[in-house]
Amino acid sequence: MPEVIIDKHTDDLTVNTIKFLAVDAVQKANSGHPGMPMGAADYTYALWIKHLRYNPKDPAWPNRDRFILSAGHGSMLLYAMLHLAGYDMPVEELQQFRQWCSHTPGHPEYDPKLGIETTTGPLGQGISNAVGMAMAQRRLAALFNKPGYDLIDHRIYVIASDGDLEEGISHEACSLAGHLGLGSIVVLYDDNHISIEGDTELAYSDNVAMRFEAYGWYVQKIDGHERAAASLALTKAEAVTDRPSIIIARTHIANGAPTKHDTAAAHGEPLGEEEIKAAKQLAGWPLEPTFYVPREVRELFAKRAAELLPQYEAWQSMFAQYRQAYPEQADLWDKMMGKVVPSNIEDIILSNIDCEKPAATRAASGMVIQEAAKLVPSLWGGSADLAPSTKTDVKGAGDFEKENPLGWNIHFGVREHGMGAAVNGIALYGGFIPYGATFLIFSDYMRPTIRLAALMGLHVVHVFTHDSIFVGEDGPTHEPIEQLPSLRAIPNVKVIRPADTAETAVAWAVALENTSGPTLLALSRQNLPASSGDPAKAKGLRRGAYVVRDSDKIDVVLIATGSEVSAAIGAYEILKQKGIGARVVSMPCMELFDEQDQAYRDSVIPPDVKKRVSIEAASPFGWSKYVGDEGISIGMTRFGASAPYKVLAEKFGFTPEAIAAKVEHYLAN
Amino acid sequence: MPEVIIDKHTDDLTVNTIKFLAVDAVQKANSGHPGMPMGAADYTYALWIKHLRYNPKDPAWPNRDRFILSAGHGSMLLYAMLHLAGYDMPVEELQQFRQWCSHTPGHPEYDPKLGIETTTGPLGQGISNAVGMAMAQRRLAALFNKPGYDLIDHRIYVIASDGDLEEGISHEACSLAGHLGLGSIVVLYDDNHISIEGDTELAYSDNVAMRFEAYGWYVQKIDGHERAAASLALTKAEAVTDRPSIIIARTHIANGAPTKHDTAAAHGEPLGEEEIKAAKQLAGWPLEPTFYVPREVRELFAKRAAELLPQYEAWQSMFAQYRQAYPEQADLWDKMMGKVVPSNIEDIILSNIDCEKPAATRAASGMVIQEAAKLVPSLWGGSADLAPSTKTDVKGAGDFEKENPLGWNIHFGVREHGMGAAVNGIALYGGFIPYGATFLIFSDYMRPTIRLAALMGLHVVHVFTHDSIFVGEDGPTHEPIEQLPSLRAIPNVKVIRPADTAETAVAWAVALENTSGPTLLALSRQNLPASSGDPAKAKGLRRGAYVVRDSDKIDVVLIATGSEVSAAIGAYEILKQKGIGARVVSMPCMELFDEQDQAYRDSVIPPDVKKRVSIEAASPFGWSKYVGDEGISIGMTRFGASAPYKVLAEKFGFTPEAIAAKVEHYLAN
Repeated sequence: MPEVIIDKHTDDLTVNTIKFLAVDAVQKANSGHPGMPMGAADYTYALWIKHLRYNPKDPAWPNRDRFILSAGHGSMLLYAMLHLAGYDMPVEELQQFRQWCSHTPGHPEYDPKLGIETTTGPLGQGISNAVGMAMAQRRLAALFNKPGYDLIDHRIYVIASDGDLEEGISHEACSLAGHLGLGSIVVLYDDNHISIEGDTELAYSDNVAMRFEAYGWYVQKIDGHERAAASLALTKAEAVTDRPSIIIARTHIANGAPTKHDTAAAHGEPLGEEEIKAAKQLAGWPLEPTFYVPREVRELFAKRAAELLPQYEAWQSMFAQYRQAYPEQADLWDKMMGKVVPSNIEDIILSNIDCEKPAATRAASGMVIQEAAKLVPSLWGGSADLAPSTKTDVKGAGDFEKENPLGWNIHFGVREHGMGAAVNGIALYGGFIPYGATFLIFSDYMRPTIRLAALMGLHVVHVFTHDSIFVGEDGPTHEPIEQLPSLRAIPNVKVIRPADTAETAVAWAVALENTSGPTLLALSRQNLPASSGDPAKAKGLRRGAYVVRDSDKIDVVLIATGSEVSAAIGAYEILKQKGIGARVVSMPCMELFDEQDQAYRDSVIPPDVKKRVSIEAASPFGWSKYVGDEGISIGMTRFGASAPYKVLAEKFGFTPEAIAAKVEHYLAN
Repeated sequence: MPEVIIDKHTDDLTVNTIKFLAVDAVQKANSGHPGMPMGAADYTYALWIKHLRYNPKDPAWPNRDRFILSAGHGSMLLYAMLHLAGYDMPVEELQQFRQWCSHTPGHPEYDPKLGIETTTGPLGQGISNAVGMAMAQRRLAALFNKPGYDLIDHRIYVIASDGDLEEGISHEACSLAGHLGLGSIVVLYDDNHISIEGDTELAYSDNVAMRFEAYGWYVQKIDGHERAAASLALTKAEAVTDRPSIIIARTHIANGAPTKHDTAAAHGEPLGEEEIKAAKQLAGWPLEPTFYVPREVRELFAKRAAELLPQYEAWQSMFAQYRQAYPEQADLWDKMMGKVVPSNIEDIILSNIDCEKPAATRAASGMVIQEAAKLVPSLWGGSADLAPSTKTDVKGAGDFEKENPLGWNIHFGVREHGMGAAVNGIALYGGFIPYGATFLIFSDYMRPTIRLAALMGLHVVHVFTHDSIFVGEDGPTHEPIEQLPSLRAIPNVKVIRPADTAETAVAWAVALENTSGPTLLALSRQNLPASSGDPAKAKGLRRGAYVVRDSDKIDVVLIATGSEVSAAIGAYEILKQKGIGARVVSMPCMELFDEQDQAYRDSVIPPDVKKRVSIEAASPFGWSKYVGDEGISIGMTRFGASAPYKVLAEKFGFTPEAIAAKVEHYLAN
């Protein structure tokens, strides 16, 4: 076994450069995590200098290896590597670590131009994004690779910490990865035995090797400070292509810090001037300048870049030949990579589905998906073991499985959180507009991934069905109450709750066009009549809210969403009989409505009509903004109950009669 | 090995009774999950008739065995067993399965009087509650058991499904259970190979035995339809007391249904009249009456109850003797079981801590916990690997570990979701007012458990520190924005964001007194001055909001929470210089404020002062209710950023100067 990567001197020099870049940056910021980069520097060096394939001048190269620092708190490790490897990460950025408007925030933030493949920090997310990336890779490879044209043929490397592996999401994602045999994944588990509270032994006794064998992974163990052993293990892992690999690298946190190595103190605080001085002296490192990169190290990475360039260029010329040899496939490639959506998709879908017949909006969504799948090659998704209920399968399109990468329907399993992270990973990978599906109530299980999609501005869609108490018999554990307001409160998320089939089609069109953040569709279990009038009118959804019924004299504005729009229309008819003029507004998306100008908003909710009632079978939290000081909200201020949904509508006051009676009482007082 | 439990006839008769009670109830409701109870009836029968120790006349007996149906969708299995075992579950209730106001909702809802130990249905929760229960049991046993007095000496049985084990929370909880060696836990894994989308092979290939061995569990495999084998495996599991046990029971869903067994169709739909007829004929079961319980089966359970009664009575007389022998311990027992909190706890704590010195509210909370731990013997908790930051450790009280059950501080590990479920389990068990702790941002990881605590009305506390963008350098991944409104939207939850040390003490007192649902404390990372004036004034927190600064003429009401109260006071001073009269309201808890009468609410926010500004470094979602039609909200409508927190306060406009300028501009326009 070779004992060095290049030679002892160069190896030491480079590893120390990585360590002290991290140490100096954390010290300058007076904030951060020096211990992880110091502990991980040896194998990370081996990975980047011998294995990882990249082109810093073209960070978006589709066939690059992916590098994910799931242990995002060790962000300086990533920034140091990007700096050394020649990405657009000058030393000035390292010196601005954790400062306002720098590209070196406390935890890595997705920035594909800089080689930052995903946002990490919330533990378990990065390793789970990798699973989605590998799924996307598998499918793209199956779609595009041809004999002699391995367009997609790369690896996805992850550095994960004990925290990543303690989090439940790692179970969901790694179990799925094992099931699907995602052989491009190579995880380096930084097993440093230290967590924030102290030794991991305080809380964590898993036999990690056995756990991952149970998932069907290829498992190796190394001394994480033996660089050549790390390289050898990576080579072995790369040779195993039918299942994911994990390399358990025993490391020492803050390796090289004379008094703070192997201590929790080194996890999340600067080492301090004295410790740094001692560490640098121990390593024979100059105390000044800080952020020092020896010439040999610069040359080493330049040499590595030069080694890698021909591979990059070979790929580019292969791809040029591919365009000639497979023009149709190349055209599809462009469409998928561009995530192209036909500009008239809404009209095509609206003309192909029956918008008149009463249908649950989940069923309407199912019809739309069948059409959209034909029109948008990038579309791809599945459900967390609820496809028969969420209606998200594309019929006849097969299952995406280990042996069938061209199958469409993804079976995420009972793994909502893992699904959310995998969907994010698919979107990050490129080529796909992914969707996931579960019941709205279980959006709670995957909230951190929705937030990260919003933070990264990812084009993802989630189909959340069974969107209210009208789930019925399954009872309060399955009946969303606070989920709608809770999701609306997340920045950069569009929550759309369509009222009927036509609105559902428009909602999906909005979702397919919303490239800059997640779109969440809240869909009914129960049948709903066509309330929006005609399909053309349903396009009002694009403006967030629009008038669906009106009166000459408006005594009251009823603002409803989803299944409550038809109930509001029923109430409108009753009130009309009693001489009360109501306007019914369908407000499927607050976020879109808030984006409209004042004139439009005033045209929908007239400022001079102060009597307003919101009607939504959910927590009324957040509705005051629309109903105003004199308005009321008909909603749910308690949890639901188990009973047939029509009984619940009566008991909780969501029938047209009950709504009309409440409105009448409200107007009379 | 015995081949039967009682005799073949009785065994068959009882198992069929269980099956057909479930089948008939689902059919009558025309809704539900018949397949699971049918598949699980054999081993469940063995468990209840040979192992489980209970007294249906005293369902709260502290030393009863616990039975948790983690696979809550199979609720009719539980209801059938409770019916047969003599709990207050008459056949009329079974006939009202899934109907309005029945005690037999679609998924089991916590009802200790009926023997329903926890609410299940959202997968992975029940098995994770069991871990908390076993932790509580371990600690109570260590506190109270004496030679000859095994007051606490029972088991916690769980039936879990593939869905339970696919969910990430099961990883967190079962890993923790293995770490702590919680030997009272015996899980029966109903391995029926069927999930909603079809065969579990579609998504799930874990080697479950190996996975649980990796956690340090004792693992057995059985044919789940071999009743005597199940009983033998239970006996073996019960003999292993140093680690949790799992029995992997291979079963066939809808076992006994001639055409629907082993099908996904039997999972979540009634079998249908024809299939039921065929199944009953196959079993030699009368078609009528439905809900049939043979006399022999009634007698069998009566005999079992008679067998168990002496054990119950022996425990009661042992406990009576214990009261004599250990009066002080018995007194402590009563206090803990009653979860007694001194009525003057707030005053004691306020007088023992320094309310004047500037402190982060997380640090204030740490001081309060030290005091509360002396005053409330039921108090118990820990942190998800963030104790040095959440300040939740009780100093010098040791760590709760396998070998140290009397240690106080629980190390939940990096397992927020598992922590939430364990905390719920501890509260369900009795004797403890448990608390968990993590950063507010990571409340997202544990939302389903907060919701369940609210739904069950559990007395639990969560300490959520680092409660705003003022986390600073860690950046947007760690900076809560939407978490406050998202948590406020949950019914029956109190979210309290105190402004200083005195408010923090009152907030903790409220949390300790709020027996009917979770209290969530949102606490600052950064130091805050004493803004509430004096400790007596801080008691205004009990009413949700109160005036902290006032003016003779009120031009504007500034409503702030937490760290923004002192910023608002700063703005108040600046405005005063400019001749603008402001009132500053501290509103630490919207829910408590909403509970006050109109007169009080109007006295705090005068209806005639329409110029109102909310100031909270979080999403403004939900504030319209308080600031009204003419009001504005100073909040965060985007994600945060990585920078020192004072920089963020400037950039995002939360300095006194920036607030004053905004208010001035607002009043001028």
